[in-house]
Amino acid sequence: MEVDTMDFRVLHTDPTGARVGRFLTPHGEVTTPVFMPVGTGGTVKTMTPEELTSMGVEIILANTYHLYLRPGDSLIQRLGGLHRFMNWHGPILTDSGGFQVFSLGRLRKIEEDGVSFSSHIDGTRYFLTPEKVIEVQRALGSDIMMPLDECTPHPSDRPYTHRSMELTHRWAERSKRVKRPGEILFGIIQGGMYRDLRRRSVETIVEMGFDGYAIGGLSVGEEKGLMYEMVGVSVEGMPEDRPRYLMGVGTPEDIVMCVGMGIDMFDCVLPTRNARNGTLFTSSGKLVIKNAQYVDDPRPVDEACDCYTCRHYSRAYLRHLFVSGEVLGLRLNTIHNLHYYTALMRAIQEAIKEGRFDEFRRRFL
Amino acid sequence: MEVDTMDFRVLHTDPTGARVGRFLTPHGEVTTPVFMPVGTGGTVKTMTPEELTSMGVEIILANTYHLYLRPGDSLIQRLGGLHRFMNWHGPILTDSGGFQVFSLGRLRKIEEDGVSFSSHIDGTRYFLTPEKVIEVQRALGSDIMMPLDECTPHPSDRPYTHRSMELTHRWAERSKRVKRPGEILFGIIQGGMYRDLRRRSVETIVEMGFDGYAIGGLSVGEEKGLMYEMVGVSVEGMPEDRPRYLMGVGTPEDIVMCVGMGIDMFDCVLPTRNARNGTLFTSSGKLVIKNAQYVDDPRPVDEACDCYTCRHYSRAYLRHLFVSGEVLGLRLNTIHNLHYYTALMRAIQEAIKEGRFDEFRRRFL
Repeated sequence: MEVDTMDFRVLHTDPTGARVGRFLTPHGEVTTPVFMPVGTGGTVKTMTPEELTSMGVEIILANTYHLYLRPGDSLIQRLGGLHRFMNWHGPILTDSGGFQVFSLGRLRKIEEDGVSFSSHIDGTRYFLTPEKVIEVQRALGSDIMMPLDECTPHPSDRPYTHRSMELTHRWAERSKRVKRPGEILFGIIQGGMYRDLRRRSVETIVEMGFDGYAIGGLSVGEEKGLMYEMVGVSVEGMPEDRPRYLMGVGTPEDIVMCVGMGIDMFDCVLPTRNARNGTLFTSSGKLVIKNAQYVDDPRPVDEACDCYTCRHYSRAYLRHLFVSGEVLGLRLNTIHNLHYYTALMRAIQEAIKEGRFDEFRRRFL
Repeated sequence: MEVDTMDFRVLHTDPTGARVGRFLTPHGEVTTPVFMPVGTGGTVKTMTPEELTSMGVEIILANTYHLYLRPGDSLIQRLGGLHRFMNWHGPILTDSGGFQVFSLGRLRKIEEDGVSFSSHIDGTRYFLTPEKVIEVQRALGSDIMMPLDECTPHPSDRPYTHRSMELTHRWAERSKRVKRPGEILFGIIQGGMYRDLRRRSVETIVEMGFDGYAIGGLSVGEEKGLMYEMVGVSVEGMPEDRPRYLMGVGTPEDIVMCVGMGIDMFDCVLPTRNARNGTLFTSSGKLVIKNAQYVDDPRPVDEACDCYTCRHYSRAYLRHLFVSGEVLGLRLNTIHNLHYYTALMRAIQEAIKEGRFDEFRRRFL
C-alpha cells in the first residue's frame, strides 16, 4: 500500500526541541521553520511574486473565504488555478475560511452540517460545509488544504468549548473522507484555553491521521503566557515526524518562542498589515515611520538590514511617502517587514542547525 | 567665452519635420522624442526607479509645486537632493509650479512680482517669485529647470492673454538673470489661442536665449485642431538646434501628431493616472479593466505587448485586483501604460531614423 502522506523530514533538532525540517509539495520544497506571508485576495498585498521570491519567501497562504467570495473558486479554476491566476509558482497553503467566517459574528450561524453566513462584501447568503470547503480549495489548486473548523471565541466557557471542539473533530473526519490520493490535508487542533480539552483534541486529530497538524484558536485575545501554555500542551501530543503549524501567529517574539516549543510553520498578517500602517520591524524594535522625529532622518529604517528598502531609501523619504499617501510607501514598507520576517526565519534555521537556538532565543528576547 | 547651453544634437530629421535627437544633462543622456513620466510628489506613483529604468524611461518630471509644499525643497536639499531622496539617478526635469498654482483658481493672486497662493494641503499662504522658483528647483537638484510662467486660462480674451504673456516674458527674463553657469533652463512660450501672440511670444523668448523651448498653455480645454495649430505656430519660430518641449501633452495620438510637427519632449499624467483609474492603452484602443466583459478573460491586456504585466497576468486577474482595490493592480496597470508610452516613443524614433514617420503616423491614427 502506498503511503499517501506529504514528504516531511526533520533535518536537525536542537536541544531545546526546536527543529529544522523540509517538506515537499506539488509546487516545490519548503524549509522549516517557515513564515508564510498572507495573500488574502490572490495577492500578498502590494507585492509581485518575484519580489517575494527575491526575499526568500518559499510558501504563501491564501484565504479560501476571500477567494470563494471574490472572484470565486470556479472562476479561478477555469483560469487554470490560483498559481497561474496570481503568477505565484511556489507552494500555496489555503486556510479553510473558518477563521474569517467565525469572525463575522452575528452574520453567521453554525449547524451540524456546516456554517451559513452573509458575505462581508454584498450580504449574499452562503452555506459552507466541510466537504464544500475541500472542494473550494481543490478548485483553487491548493498545495496544502485545511479542514473547516470552528475557531472557538475567547473567552468561552468549558461546555461551549467542549461542544465546539467535538464539532471541529466531526468536521475533520468528514474532511478527511473527501480528501483524494495525492492531496495534502492538515488536521486542526482546538480546545480553547482548557489544557485537558487541548490534550483530547490533539489525541483525536492525530488518531485520525493527517499530513500535518495545526494549532487553531490561539492568538485570539488571550494572555501570551496562556497562549504559550496551550501551544506546549498541543505540541506534546503531536508526532515528531509531521509538520506543526501554529495558525495566525504572530509577532517576532511569538515566533522565536514557539519555534523553541517545536513549531515548524507560521502565518500572520502582522508584517504586511503593519507595513501598510507604517509600523516597521527593526533589530532594535518597532519604528513608527510617520513620527515627526523621522522628518529629516537620513538613515535607513534599520542600519543592520540589507533589504531593498534599507539599501536605497531614508526614513525621511519613507515618512514623506507615508504622510503623502503614496502607494510606493506601502510597497517599500512591505518589502522591509517581509524581509525582516524571512531573515528572522533564516537566522532561526541557522541557529538550530548549529545547536545554539537557546542562546539565539535569549539574545532575541 | 564658454558656450553655456545644454548639449543637444539633432541626429535624424524625417521629411515630415519629425526628428530624433539627443541631449545631455548632469545625470545622463536622453534620446528624443521622449516622454517624461510625471513624478508628482517625489515618486512616479506606484513605481520604483528600477521599474522605470527597466521599461526604458530615461527622464522623469518632478513637480516643483508639490515638493515645495511637501516635504519642502530645503529638506530635500539637506538630504542630498531629489535624485538621492527618491533613488532616481537619471535626469529630472522640474516644472516651475506655475501650472499647479494657476490651477488653484481663487486660492491664488498674481502680481508683478510673483504669485501668492494658499496650499491645497493645509491652507498655508505662500508667495512665489520667478527668482524663488529657480532657487527651489536648484535646491531640489533639478537637471532641467523651467521658469515661472502664467498658464493663461482658456478661454481668455485677447487683452488678458496679451498682458499675461508679457508678464510671462518679464518673469522669463528675471529667471534667466538668476540662472548660474552649468544650469539648464528652458524658456516657455505662451500667447493663448492667438496666432499672432504665439508668434510674438516665441520671438521674444527665443531672442532671450534658453537651453530649450517649451510650449505652455495648451491642452487646457481647447479643441484638438486649435491646439495643433498653436503648436505649429510656436514651432515655426523655434531654432532647429534646441529641444522643443510641449508641456502637459498628451494622448498617444497627440504625441504622434506633434512629433510630426517637430516636438521633441512630452510629459503628461495620462498613462499613470489612467492606470490608477483602470483605463489601459492597447494597440487596439483603450480598455477599461473593470468592465464585466473581462471577468473571466484569460488574455493579457494587449496580446501585442511584451510588458511584465502582459507577460504574466490575465485581464481577469487585473479586473479582480481592480475591483478588490488591491495596490498590486495599480502597479501592474501603471507598468503596462508606461510601457505602452515608452514603446511608442521607441517606435517613433525608429520610424524617424528610417525616414518612414509619415507612414507610421498614417497607420497609427
